Amino acid sequence: MNSPSPLIRPLARIRIVLSHTSHPGNIGAAARAMKTMGLSRLALVNPKYFPDAEADARASGAADVLEQAVVCQSLAEALRDTVMVAGMTARRRDLALPFSWARQGAAQLVGVAAQGEVALVFGNESSGLSNEELSLCHLPIMIPANPDYSSLNLGAAVQLMCYELRLAAELPGEAPRGELALATMEEIEGLHAHLEKSAIASGFLNPAQPNRLMLRFRRLFARAGLEREEVSILRGLLTTFEKPKIRKKS
Amino acid sequence: MNSPSPLIRPLARIRIVLSHTSHPGNIGAAARAMKTMGLSRLALVNPKYFPDAEADARASGAADVLEQAVVCQSLAEALRDTVMVAGMTARRRDLALPFSWARQGAAQLVGVAAQGEVALVFGNESSGLSNEELSLCHLPIMIPANPDYSSLNLGAAVQLMCYELRLAAELPGEAPRGELALATMEEIEGLHAHLEKSAIASGFLNPAQPNRLMLRFRRLFARAGLEREEVSILRGLLTTFEKPKIRKKS
Repeated sequence: MNSPSPLIRPLARIRIVLSHTSHPGNIGAAARAMKTMGLSRLALVNPKYFPDAEADARASGAADVLEQAVVCQSLAEALRDTVMVAGMTARRRDLALPFSWARQGAAQLVGVAAQGEVALVFGNESSGLSNEELSLCHLPIMIPANPDYSSLNLGAAVQLMCYELRLAAELPGEAPRGELALATMEEIEGLHAHLEKSAIASGFLNPAQPNRLMLRFRRLFARAGLEREEVSILRGLLTTFEKPKIRKKS
Repeated sequence: MNSPSPLIRPLARIRIVLSHTSHPGNIGAAARAMKTMGLSRLALVNPKYFPDAEADARASGAADVLEQAVVCQSLAEALRDTVMVAGMTARRRDLALPFSWARQGAAQLVGVAAQGEVALVFGNESSGLSNEELSLCHLPIMIPANPDYSSLNLGAAVQLMCYELRLAAELPGEAPRGELALATMEEIEGLHAHLEKSAIASGFLNPAQPNRLMLRFRRLFARAGLEREEVSILRGLLTTFEKPKIRKKS
């Protein structure tokens, strides 16, 4: 077992999530890449083949990371209990969200990992993360690359990000957010559901087509990095707005 | 052909040298890694198998890098005309020479590449660079890694170093926010005033003491860095919430 030194403790709070991986060799390569950088928590969402001899072979000395890997049925399951989710993307065109470059994104993740569980999600080899998957990510991360050929191998991308995470963990971290607890994934999803319901009831959102506007709200709140208390305040405000207004006579 | 932009011209002066590579898949992976970062000059010293179908498969869209690869009989031949040679090592004990960490080493190489040809040499997968090979390197470079397991896959190490070379050549700025216009101070103040009025009217805010909660909203939106269109959407939502839900009795 791989026990990170106190200096790089945040690495123990970072899970690497591989979603819908097609090639088991890449899962093994990712495990090896993680272990070389001192990360050990791997979650696999619907891998095409796992366990697999090719994964074992490519993992080399990181068999322990594969053995402890958690296989999940959905991305939401893999993200349980996280306070921040970063997702890798290579597609600028999809991003209305501001993204972070690999180095800055790693520093942001490590900063938040000082306070809670975080995840870094890698999509399928050919198609990347789906829009639905990306909508669960607060922070899209892009690896700077050759615009004419930006297709990194999955294992190589995991290597590079784990390297940046290790360096970010070794360097003095970001300024902490104080004692304010960050909202969990579930709390943030609860806020979005509440907002959607209220906005539909008020007539602001077209119930047949709520997505475009809801996506804008997701992006805004993802950038803010919501605190638990802020989620409560926002939901309290929504609840008051939902109440029927009866004009009081004074 | 891959023509680096003027900004990253130094990358065209950097050759990647793989010495005595055992697994042809790693040669392909290295070619792919190089191309994703805008490098294209690969030299192979006595590769065990080359050309090879496995190399082609792992190169993916970087077949051109493999096609232009130069096969050499000795490391000295591969280093011809260089003014500086860096060599990767994972073995501290071998190093009488002071070494550089990956990031600093990449910056040093890029700096020298402004003036002449440079090379970055990777040794055999199991044994690394021999002492004789290292003696031809001016600058040993080490990748920071988990001391309990520091064995990076060769292709992954090439990916990581080419990434550092690209960043050193390019120094990308902060992630741009795209074409989304940020809201002006006045627009943000307008939103806060609107929010305060609505929240008081709904009964959520105590009109005698609105400040504490309004400050929380200010903080949240300040962290998000509001866009102009987001201010419009939020104000549109507030306006809908303000509409009476029960017909006024007149």
